[in-house]
Amino acid sequence: MSDTPVNPLPSRIPLIQAPMAGVQDWQLAAAVSSAGALGSIPCGMLSAAQVEAEVRAYRAACDKPLNLNFFCHPMPTPSADIMERWQTRLAGYYDEAGIQPSQGGALRMPYDADMAAVVEPLKPDVVSFHFGLPDAALVEGLKRNNTLIISTATTLEEGLWLQHNGADMVIAQGYEAGGHRGMFLTRDLATQSGTLALVSLLVSQLSIPVIAAGGIGSKEDIKAALNMGAAAVQLGTTYLLCDEAKTSALHRQQLTDLHATTALTNVFSGRPARGIRNRLMTELGDICADVAPFPFASAAVTPLKQAAEAQGRTDFSSLWSGQNRRGCQAINAAKLTQALWPDNQ
Amino acid sequence: MSDTPVNPLPSRIPLIQAPMAGVQDWQLAAAVSSAGALGSIPCGMLSAAQVEAEVRAYRAACDKPLNLNFFCHPMPTPSADIMERWQTRLAGYYDEAGIQPSQGGALRMPYDADMAAVVEPLKPDVVSFHFGLPDAALVEGLKRNNTLIISTATTLEEGLWLQHNGADMVIAQGYEAGGHRGMFLTRDLATQSGTLALVSLLVSQLSIPVIAAGGIGSKEDIKAALNMGAAAVQLGTTYLLCDEAKTSALHRQQLTDLHATTALTNVFSGRPARGIRNRLMTELGDICADVAPFPFASAAVTPLKQAAEAQGRTDFSSLWSGQNRRGCQAINAAKLTQALWPDNQ
Repeated sequence: MSDTPVNPLPSRIPLIQAPMAGVQDWQLAAAVSSAGALGSIPCGMLSAAQVEAEVRAYRAACDKPLNLNFFCHPMPTPSADIMERWQTRLAGYYDEAGIQPSQGGALRMPYDADMAAVVEPLKPDVVSFHFGLPDAALVEGLKRNNTLIISTATTLEEGLWLQHNGADMVIAQGYEAGGHRGMFLTRDLATQSGTLALVSLLVSQLSIPVIAAGGIGSKEDIKAALNMGAAAVQLGTTYLLCDEAKTSALHRQQLTDLHATTALTNVFSGRPARGIRNRLMTELGDICADVAPFPFASAAVTPLKQAAEAQGRTDFSSLWSGQNRRGCQAINAAKLTQALWPDNQ
Repeated sequence: MSDTPVNPLPSRIPLIQAPMAGVQDWQLAAAVSSAGALGSIPCGMLSAAQVEAEVRAYRAACDKPLNLNFFCHPMPTPSADIMERWQTRLAGYYDEAGIQPSQGGALRMPYDADMAAVVEPLKPDVVSFHFGLPDAALVEGLKRNNTLIISTATTLEEGLWLQHNGADMVIAQGYEAGGHRGMFLTRDLATQSGTLALVSLLVSQLSIPVIAAGGIGSKEDIKAALNMGAAAVQLGTTYLLCDEAKTSALHRQQLTDLHATTALTNVFSGRPARGIRNRLMTELGDICADVAPFPFASAAVTPLKQAAEAQGRTDFSSLWSGQNRRGCQAINAAKLTQALWPDNQ
């Protein structure tokens, strides 16, 4: 397609603040939206009641459009053996920490009919999905209220699949991106493509608009992605030091190191995600065959993380980060958004 | 650095045809240069006499500037055990092919004093290196003749090292790029960054000009890379179908498939390089611990490759390719260069 399709985003600026579960809530979203970009609330670890409360808080603070983000993975039913193998793999760490093996933290749950019953009446302007799309009926339910549907592609196949199955826009999530890979038609990490190549390929092969994501850290990078034919951009890592983000002090400290190596790892959740390499990744290997399937792996890591963080260590923390941290600034998110998208852009 | 440093390339157009050993010679370089970009001759698998002959042939055909490309890896001295382990790993394939284990093909050799004695008097306009830089005396020898020195960085550390050690420009070789990773300060593949993130980081942290490479497949992609602050771009894969390339018919066929998966693999040479996945990669694993060290691994694979290709199979062929093949066209390279850089750009 030689012409860039029209950008259907409701925000004044075609820039989406990437939803980042665990490190932000409505406050970051509202700050970004107030500057004209599109704020996102990560809902994958929230109950329906929590989602409703977040949307209310956002709307009380801000009259701008809003993106709600959900996961839509199939839930596996791992055998006791598989779960025990993971617990066994972590047993030495529990001993070292002097705590009993346990399960903690919220599980990442997929968007389902119960969630839809709460979300649809909220009429969010945009809903973005990770790991594909939910059942067609759930997509239709959102579309009836004119909610714009976005999902993530990490390969050409996934982009074509999303276009065929009702997505209004596709996020081209390049290899550089922090957090979970949105891959859903393959488990082969070799298929994962750098942002530049993926955006180039998707804008040339899809008819729906493409959002560039992964490694974008400056206003020049944004201009570049739009010049490649992307209709919009999505930035996550760059917002992680902002005042309104809930990023921990320990996580913030590591994000300021431009040299720190990130890797794709499955040890925190069961699915590959990009974070700054730490002890758990180094010792188990970035990709560990014994990990419990997504989303169940995290529950056994959370108590270790909490114990280590209480002592000022990030040995077991998921330090999500993309490959480009040059744009991270400890300022408010509205100001950062204005710097990323000056009005003369 | 907020301003893009001045581009010192001698060509009219700041576009370098990436040197691609094994699939091109002076003819591709001359065709690209005739259209105003900078043609490159890959010299890493040539003798000094062959380099001299290539340069003569190029200069007889073309009065434009020229880039000569060399490897500059330290040569290892692998034990007999290590070499035997690799031969053993391949033994079943020799049996299957009904041929005797043997060694074939040219070894990739580093730039050294003997090569310099031939190259310096040729006064190439540009010399680019892969895997770091040769000894300072060899770099100085080229600089005395005003040869521009370029080398490849795959991380921020490598970019800073090259700037400190005398490179005039740095190629930011992103994860998307086909062929050998230029990495030389690390063996950790997790450090390898997508082109967008790497260019963004290097232009912000280096004072010498940066050349963007990896995944660039269209004039829009080129404009984007320059908008990010790159002083120039380097494209390889996009030229692989050109009339003047020596790409085999079997390789060409696979390059036309936009869906084919590429991976970083060490099984063809001993160092990681990106190519379209084939039988050898699948069966040994993309990254194989038993491989002989670079550059010695290739000699034992070459006879298998030749036997299979004679039967129309690419089971043992290094099908080098970047992650973005959308721009590949079976036309002459001058025409392709003009399409990539229209005069109104």
